[in-house]
Amino acid sequence: SGFVHIKNPHLDSLEEDILYHLDLGTKTHNLPAMFGDIKFVCVGGSPNRMRAFAQFMQRELGLAGAGEELPDISAGSDRYAMYRAGPVLSISHGMGIPSISIMLHELIKLLHHAKCRDVTIIRIGTSGGLGIEAGSVVITDTAVDSSFQPRFEQVVLGDVVVRSTELDKDLAEELLACSREIADFPTLIGHTMCTYDFYEGQGRLDGALCSFSSEKKLEYLRRAYDAGVRNIEMESTAFAALCGLCGLKGESCQFYLL
Amino acid sequence: SGFVHIKNPHLDSLEEDILYHLDLGTKTHNLPAMFGDIKFVCVGGSPNRMRAFAQFMQRELGLAGAGEELPDISAGSDRYAMYRAGPVLSISHGMGIPSISIMLHELIKLLHHAKCRDVTIIRIGTSGGLGIEAGSVVITDTAVDSSFQPRFEQVVLGDVVVRSTELDKDLAEELLACSREIADFPTLIGHTMCTYDFYEGQGRLDGALCSFSSEKKLEYLRRAYDAGVRNIEMESTAFAALCGLCGLKGESCQFYLL
Repeated sequence: SGFVHIKNPHLDSLEEDILYHLDLGTKTHNLPAMFGDIKFVCVGGSPNRMRAFAQFMQRELGLAGAGEELPDISAGSDRYAMYRAGPVLSISHGMGIPSISIMLHELIKLLHHAKCRDVTIIRIGTSGGLGIEAGSVVITDTAVDSSFQPRFEQVVLGDVVVRSTELDKDLAEELLACSREIADFPTLIGHTMCTYDFYEGQGRLDGALCSFSSEKKLEYLRRAYDAGVRNIEMESTAFAALCGLCGLKGESCQFYLL
Repeated sequence: SGFVHIKNPHLDSLEEDILYHLDLGTKTHNLPAMFGDIKFVCVGGSPNRMRAFAQFMQRELGLAGAGEELPDISAGSDRYAMYRAGPVLSISHGMGIPSISIMLHELIKLLHHAKCRDVTIIRIGTSGGLGIEAGSVVITDTAVDSSFQPRFEQVVLGDVVVRSTELDKDLAEELLACSREIADFPTLIGHTMCTYDFYEGQGRLDGALCSFSSEKKLEYLRRAYDAGVRNIEMESTAFAALCGLCGLKGESCQFYLL
């Protein structure tokens, strides 16, 4: 059918669904009118970058109003920022799995209420790179955790539920094909490691705490590389798991920012 | 000595320490001049609220410029917002453990580089409540995880390290005593449960995914209450663990926002 899958039997019995962190709701907004024609959702950590991306899309698509300020649809909440340019929605998600998860739950419900069909969602974030050139783009085939396993562990009422983190392989190949037309930066497909922490979790030596040597760090990163990891960030496993479960065609691409 | 403890032997050998997500650095900014007299740091999720809090402190302390716009010290980064009002620094941390952890690592290094002494740090966030009146403030004695255990599991190079999540009991009592002078809202001391997820992790029935019944949810929340949990949020265990390890006198208070 092309609709997103909501796997929550309670949702239909809600009189009103308030998408609190997006500052939208089923009674306060006409979601089908506002969002029914959305075909692409691009998400990234930083609100300024996601505004700049929406403005870029507006120019690229030759839409009316290009160059003008775009309104932040979620301005009433300062948790996330949301902009639209034609069929493209551009939303920030903050940093880390908990932050992107809240946004994705509410976005998926938004697409459901708006009766959107055949939506593609792409994360366009930044990451650290592993054995690749700075400025490269990594298209994730599988998101892995800090033990290099393709899984996302979600705690539900205190119990751990393990979820798959595979992304859409066809979409990955399609994006790789697109990148061949752009000479500016190398692009590759690889595993993306997702951690809960930026400093100790990613082997950085410059946090407020660091209990390991430079050698131990390199040994860990070498093991990650040998397991197929080409970059490290903080959202991809939750992104892959939620998109997969809700039938959203999703891909995660990250720019390796040195 | 009253200084924060940096537990990282690599830090002294850095030529420059760039606090990337705060848009500050040891070569680009005179950190002792900018921050050396800071005595209190208040942190919370939302950037707008932390600006409003700094403005409130400016009025309360009778500082010059009260009522005027305060500059965002971290404006060059759109990850966090930072304001100061006299000896009080007010910083946003976004949502979830990964997001607050990045901010705290950089904040602790900032206090170290600025040679601040005897700093008290208080999280002033929002939370869900458990068996308490909406509008209550919970002062956390111990932060617990989703199994009600007083621990924070930090992954370091792929290995799990367990950290203590106790907060400063004297500071908790001091804050409770202050609250007695304010009649507007009930205040109590209790355990705070910290989860990695807002919807499934906290037993909400209105996420995009929900696999449990209302009865199972209530049974879990009842177990949490019986274990001493009075509210639920998403940052306290990491906050308690990092403050504790770095010798920062810290407390976490949350307003139960219905």
